[in-house]
Amino acid sequence: MTRPVPARPIGVFDSGLGGLTVVRQLRRHLANEEILYLGDLAHLPYGTKSTREIRRRSEECARYLLKQGVKALVIACNSASSVAYRSLSKSLPIPVLDVITPAVEEALASSRSARIGVIATYATIASKSYAKALAKRRPDADYFMQSCPLFVQLAEEGWLDNEIALGTARRYLEPVKKKSVDTLILGCTHYPLLQKVIAKVMGRSVRLIDSAIPTARRLGKLLEERGIRSRRTGRAALRIRVTDFPRQFARIGAIFLGEELSNVKLVKVP
Amino acid sequence: MTRPVPARPIGVFDSGLGGLTVVRQLRRHLANEEILYLGDLAHLPYGTKSTREIRRRSEECARYLLKQGVKALVIACNSASSVAYRSLSKSLPIPVLDVITPAVEEALASSRSARIGVIATYATIASKSYAKALAKRRPDADYFMQSCPLFVQLAEEGWLDNEIALGTARRYLEPVKKKSVDTLILGCTHYPLLQKVIAKVMGRSVRLIDSAIPTARRLGKLLEERGIRSRRTGRAALRIRVTDFPRQFARIGAIFLGEELSNVKLVKVP
Repeated sequence: MTRPVPARPIGVFDSGLGGLTVVRQLRRHLANEEILYLGDLAHLPYGTKSTREIRRRSEECARYLLKQGVKALVIACNSASSVAYRSLSKSLPIPVLDVITPAVEEALASSRSARIGVIATYATIASKSYAKALAKRRPDADYFMQSCPLFVQLAEEGWLDNEIALGTARRYLEPVKKKSVDTLILGCTHYPLLQKVIAKVMGRSVRLIDSAIPTARRLGKLLEERGIRSRRTGRAALRIRVTDFPRQFARIGAIFLGEELSNVKLVKVP
Repeated sequence: MTRPVPARPIGVFDSGLGGLTVVRQLRRHLANEEILYLGDLAHLPYGTKSTREIRRRSEECARYLLKQGVKALVIACNSASSVAYRSLSKSLPIPVLDVITPAVEEALASSRSARIGVIATYATIASKSYAKALAKRRPDADYFMQSCPLFVQLAEEGWLDNEIALGTARRYLEPVKKKSVDTLILGCTHYPLLQKVIAKVMGRSVRLIDSAIPTARRLGKLLEERGIRSRRTGRAALRIRVTDFPRQFARIGAIFLGEELSNVKLVKVP
């Protein structure tokens, strides 16, 4: 039971299956790291919940993963990152990563005009977490927030590249485009799936930031620094734990993960 | 505290605010009946949850309303109606109504061709409750089911009549239209808001059934029969109880109810 720290899994949680887009990048960039994913599907989505409720659920998820012996924790949900990152990183005895900080730093590093767009859920925008993270690092930056609630459902429906997806992207993104941003943060785990239509609307000159990629890089660096990077050779396992098995589970999960779901178990998280 | 039965409120519950489209019709048809609405927003949506989980939540909601002294219960959520109506109507000491039975009876009464379409969430369709209710009453009827997941988000976004709503309706409804149905049941509380685009796609010859209307009529009749119809003169109060206050609450609620929300309180339902 007491595996050496480097051999332990990375814990990842999200309100649902959207966080599997983060897992997809972790598996691409840190293939030999075992991953234990917790999807709190019985309580999805977090985005429509109050701050208090999102924080409470995040603490329960973190507690569950910690008990399973994870060596680091990735909050793969933007809503949870917005309201629970600070408290979790203070209270937990392991390194904690959110998906917002890496995305913001990547965006600031890559933007030449310092005009940055952020698309996210209502909850994430209302939490002002992106605005604060951007302003703290670059007070002179101009940033423009836009919520795109329909993107989540489009991604789950698998309508990633049809005329509805394109029309919806136009409606949401034209106002952001008019602000002449040169960088756009995809501030919701579902949005990278719509990257194609988003890019079509925004044009080639705008760089899209999928937060999963800088998050994976940051995690790799952090594990190296702490000397807890896995020494395994070859691809490590992914275990998926869910608090409920909703209908359409396998279909939607596979869209996000980019491969069939296996090794899935139902667990209780109070 | 012990008000005479006719003076007591009607209890209505739903996973969220969608059930307010049912309340809207109850207030139109039974204006002098007091209504106590419970929106289980901390656990929304039910549609993506497992049968077991939906049933458990429905029981908790019913228990809460019963404690508040309601004289009858309306399950305003199709997912909950699908899986919890039978058990609740057996276990509760008050009349219980679902939204499926009234819609099905209305559809069968109005259809000449006995070719009926049903649009609903995945969960409702997978539960086969519409199919069973139709087949039981009219074994020779032909019915065609179609899930329209994006309609929920379109309704909540207030995109009721734009080109995205119309395009989405076309995509979902063309296959149903091809079946030459003459009646279409709107089997989700959110769908009546999209009635305009649905009608545009289906054409004038297809009758749309908003289950809230036959449900309100059926409830009125039931209260009369049992001698527990309100004797109040004038419009009665609507009280709204929610298990969470999500963002966008007031905006979305007003879209569904067709009036501003007032008299709203946060309550705990375990």
